[in-house]
Amino acid sequence: MKPTHDILAAILDEVRPLIGKGKVANYIPALAKVPNDKLGIAVFTNSGEVITAGDAEEGFSIQSISKVLGLTLAMRQYQPEELWQRVGKEPSGQAFNSLIQLEMEQGIPRNPFINAGAIVIADMLQSRLSAPRQRLLEFSRGLSGNEALQYDKVVAASEMMHSDRNAAIAYLMRSFGNFENDVIPVLNNYFHACSLRMSCIDLAKTFSYLANKGRSVITDEEVITSTQSKQINALLATCGLYDGAGEFAYRVGMPGKSGVGGGIVAIVPGEMTIAVWSPELDKSGNSLAGTRALELFAKRIGRSIF
Amino acid sequence: MKPTHDILAAILDEVRPLIGKGKVANYIPALAKVPNDKLGIAVFTNSGEVITAGDAEEGFSIQSISKVLGLTLAMRQYQPEELWQRVGKEPSGQAFNSLIQLEMEQGIPRNPFINAGAIVIADMLQSRLSAPRQRLLEFSRGLSGNEALQYDKVVAASEMMHSDRNAAIAYLMRSFGNFENDVIPVLNNYFHACSLRMSCIDLAKTFSYLANKGRSVITDEEVITSTQSKQINALLATCGLYDGAGEFAYRVGMPGKSGVGGGIVAIVPGEMTIAVWSPELDKSGNSLAGTRALELFAKRIGRSIF
Amino acid sequence: MKPTHDILAAILDEVRPLIGKGKVANYIPALAKVPNDKLGIAVFTNSGEVITAGDAEEGFSIQSISKVLGLTLAMRQYQPEELWQRVGKEPSGQAFNSLIQLEMEQGIPRNPFINAGAIVIADMLQSRLSAPRQRLLEFSRGLSGNEALQYDKVVAASEMMHSDRNAAIAYLMRSFGNFENDVIPVLNNYFHACSLRMSCIDLAKTFSYLANKGRSVITDEEVITSTQSKQINALLATCGLYDGAGEFAYRVGMPGKSGVGGGIVAIVPGEMTIAVWSPELDKSGNSLAGTRALELFAKRIGRSIF
Amino acid sequence: MKPTHDILAAILDEVRPLIGKGKVANYIPALAKVPNDKLGIAVFTNSGEVITAGDAEEGFSIQSISKVLGLTLAMRQYQPEELWQRVGKEPSGQAFNSLIQLEMEQGIPRNPFINAGAIVIADMLQSRLSAPRQRLLEFSRGLSGNEALQYDKVVAASEMMHSDRNAAIAYLMRSFGNFENDVIPVLNNYFHACSLRMSCIDLAKTFSYLANKGRSVITDEEVITSTQSKQINALLATCGLYDGAGEFAYRVGMPGKSGVGGGIVAIVPGEMTIAVWSPELDKSGNSLAGTRALELFAKRIGRSIF
Repeated sequence: MKPTHDILAAILDEVRPLIGKGKVANYIPALAKVPNDKLGIAVFTNSGEVITAGDAEEGFSIQSISKVLGLTLAMRQYQPEELWQRVGKEPSGQAFNSLIQLEMEQGIPRNPFINAGAIVIADMLQSRLSAPRQRLLEFSRGLSGNEALQYDKVVAASEMMHSDRNAAIAYLMRSFGNFENDVIPVLNNYFHACSLRMSCIDLAKTFSYLANKGRSVITDEEVITSTQSKQINALLATCGLYDGAGEFAYRVGMPGKSGVGGGIVAIVPGEMTIAVWSPELDKSGNSLAGTRALELFAKRIGRSIF
Repeated sequence: MKPTHDILAAILDEVRPLIGKGKVANYIPALAKVPNDKLGIAVFTNSGEVITAGDAEEGFSIQSISKVLGLTLAMRQYQPEELWQRVGKEPSGQAFNSLIQLEMEQGIPRNPFINAGAIVIADMLQSRLSAPRQRLLEFSRGLSGNEALQYDKVVAASEMMHSDRNAAIAYLMRSFGNFENDVIPVLNNYFHACSLRMSCIDLAKTFSYLANKGRSVITDEEVITSTQSKQINALLATCGLYDGAGEFAYRVGMPGKSGVGGGIVAIVPGEMTIAVWSPELDKSGNSLAGTRALELFAKRIGRSIF
Repeated sequence: MKPTHDILAAILDEVRPLIGKGKVANYIPALAKVPNDKLGIAVFTNSGEVITAGDAEEGFSIQSISKVLGLTLAMRQYQPEELWQRVGKEPSGQAFNSLIQLEMEQGIPRNPFINAGAIVIADMLQSRLSAPRQRLLEFSRGLSGNEALQYDKVVAASEMMHSDRNAAIAYLMRSFGNFENDVIPVLNNYFHACSLRMSCIDLAKTFSYLANKGRSVITDEEVITSTQSKQINALLATCGLYDGAGEFAYRVGMPGKSGVGGGIVAIVPGEMTIAVWSPELDKSGNSLAGTRALELFAKRIGRSIF
Repeated sequence: MKPTHDILAAILDEVRPLIGKGKVANYIPALAKVPNDKLGIAVFTNSGEVITAGDAEEGFSIQSISKVLGLTLAMRQYQPEELWQRVGKEPSGQAFNSLIQLEMEQGIPRNPFINAGAIVIADMLQSRLSAPRQRLLEFSRGLSGNEALQYDKVVAASEMMHSDRNAAIAYLMRSFGNFENDVIPVLNNYFHACSLRMSCIDLAKTFSYLANKGRSVITDEEVITSTQSKQINALLATCGLYDGAGEFAYRVGMPGKSGVGGGIVAIVPGEMTIAVWSPELDKSGNSLAGTRALELFAKRIGRSIF
């Protein structure tokens, strides 16, 4: 079945009662202030059609979803053997900000989608790009076709004020020789990426290259190769939902990436990209109503990679 | 592209040089004796075609691949809410026989494909089936269409002689109230399942229901529902390759399950089931040449779930 | 100052209000039934004087205090290099029944006073003594001068019924090659030792050899050498109070060993042995009022090894 | 027996063959350059007598021995309930610079003698003293009676250059709310304390208050109370030798503190303070020949707290 506005709207109605049963991220004040009843969904098909329902045009902090942008840039800048010696490809089985495994595994993060992995990627971009922060912003603008995309300076500053845990992660990697630059500017770039404001529509458009063999549906340019696109989807499927990747695969059956801002992007390879937004999170840190919406979407339109 | 004998034979030729670079499982003598140069592949399509190359007809110990059979039986016997309160759905991020996470997580194994998870499944089957060992054998015979399938008594006995680690796992779960029966008979059933001898052809046929929405291509019966079939594939994709699931998804891009006997089964949903066999293992415990063969297969015939 | 009945009685009065603020061990029914208001203390001086107050003559389950008897017997049977290759001498920094460190450290328990260490000692005694259970009983009778000492069969049987965690520990050590005998009989002996019923007076007399350079004040025989006596005291000081050894040293300042039956034995080398009993435990599993009584005792009579 | 120069010299001769069997600390260049064959011992009795042998007058980097000075200052500045809510009193059972336990235990270090504990103490001193670095130097000069004591600026700067691991520890504690000041200046103070150059004679004099009920034998002033002195000795006995405290208690039988500069201070309460120096370390990070020298000293002069 093809997705339509009515199907999407019905899904949102069905998941709305979950609002109130999760928890808005509150580790920084700027995120805690987001109204908990925001709810939106956007589908962007490989043929260029946009279908939406709810608050699909309102921007929010994409947070960890930016880790996919960072990885994509790094895959364009580094040879695979350079990249994958500094970060692994396996699920962590632990909380996204844990240092335990990082110490046991000698400063090599398990994958690029836990904090440690994304921070090492930010360090790699810092080493090779002249203005990595600006570059990532322009990259996002190009992919989304939205030149108005901006970092949310308030969010970025607020993250920087509460950066101790991530600083600990960066310094631990440095102590193992897996971090090349000064910690503060790299974290600053990392937090700016997290603070990027995008709407569901922006997100669905931006990540269309993962549904389209590496080629952006917006620009028709090859962002990454077809093989690289499959590789990123593989990593998303196994590691994209913090310590809830198995449950997400079981229930939704698509590669995806979540952020603590309440957004989730999911990919139907060869067909479409979906973005949902609902700020309240489940105990793994994934959008509670967002996950359920994707589960219903998968069931209703009959798509699953499995 | 459609798989053919020639493609399969070419793949085997290409991976054969890897033999000698891995290690045959040697924790029990019966496995250590298997010649390291065995190499086979079988494809079973949803239309019932069998394509093979190499030692595809020779039986070997399926070992952990049997965990998929156990889970399938348990999903037929238990309601989801009963089943998933006793075992999780997340990758472990640790070795398949580790007790560390099991203690930290109060005796609930991370997923059904690490030893602890498969043992708790064996305990559940013991509680509900009258002759679980015989039942699993008959189930396998039916699925494979091969009435000659047998447990390898020598392997099973050898495993039982070296069962201390798994006994520790079972007793630890019992101490947390997540084990109902006597430990020894449950382990005995578990080891018998591991000792099941099947060829690549048997394996590809047996697991055809996972490529065919839950319905066996051999018997045309519904083994499990279409939804359950997707769920098992999701779990295989995130947890099926021990602590190498991410790497396997990245390189091969199919749900799969490996065993320390050197076999791997992989699923192309909607199309076909593939089984490979090469006894030497990589450091995660997955068949070294077998994984590479599947990677080449995915590339040559252009199939990936991502 | 010399300890007197009046001093001891005053100490008991002072700690009695703590009763109700701890928790009687309840993992086996036989222990949970002990009245929580029992409170006793006995001092046995190296000159042979017995001073007591409260329920000092009533027998109770010595539980982990028996680990000191096991170690003493093992030090008489094994050369140091044999003994200390199978068990370490360091504090564990973890709960007494944890398997985590045991797995990380390849089946070698941290010290003889956590469960794993005492079980490996029980295995060593099984290997070298013809009737280890009877031998330990006779050893205790001789040391205490009380021929009426008995194992509490009800407690031992109850422990055996709830032995899963300790069975897991034993099997894990076996899987690492650090366990020689069948698990069940060794655990049975271990639980019998734990079930030994002794009064505070019995305990203070029994362990007088640790205050007297290895020589029993009761029998005047050399139980172990003076050096071995210092070594056991050193291990008690660093590892004798589960994960509360540092706090105990800080507050009490004597080598000691506690049991979940609520007993604690403490040593003033060169002078005296003290035993206290109060069944309610603190969160580390040590007698709450008993620890406080020893702290007051140390302060009042002005003894400390520090 | 009373210690004499001849006894000390004989002990040094006996342990000298161990030189070459350990490893000089090499994590910073300034330490790696110290000649490995330095060997010295000094005894300072409570009556004020100094007995020495070998390189007892040569200064070296006291490193972690400074943690005792930091704790002593903190005990003078803070009430016990303030102090011990920010750092524990238990052995860690882990390497001195591990973050694993620190994360599991919510940023509260196990004890003041692992790096995390000493860094939190440095943070506490920073909060309450106006010039903590100068203050600790003056405190050491006063205790040792040696006004020429200096920080080794080269060592301190070298430590600061290799401070990533300790920065990770500090930031992790900050993320749990157990760190009040800026990380860099606190670490700078901490490394300066580590870089303090003292000879064996200086060390034995400095810590005489721990052998003399809190009162300095040099100044006759009360540094800390008698009770506090016992408390520090108790912590030294259980936590003072990294993850080798149990072995040290077993072999030497005295409270002690080691540093990776190869120094060890040991206390015979009521009698004397001993300091040894030999730069090569054993696998726990304690001076190899130094530990053996203390073991022989304890045996020869017949002193042990056990």
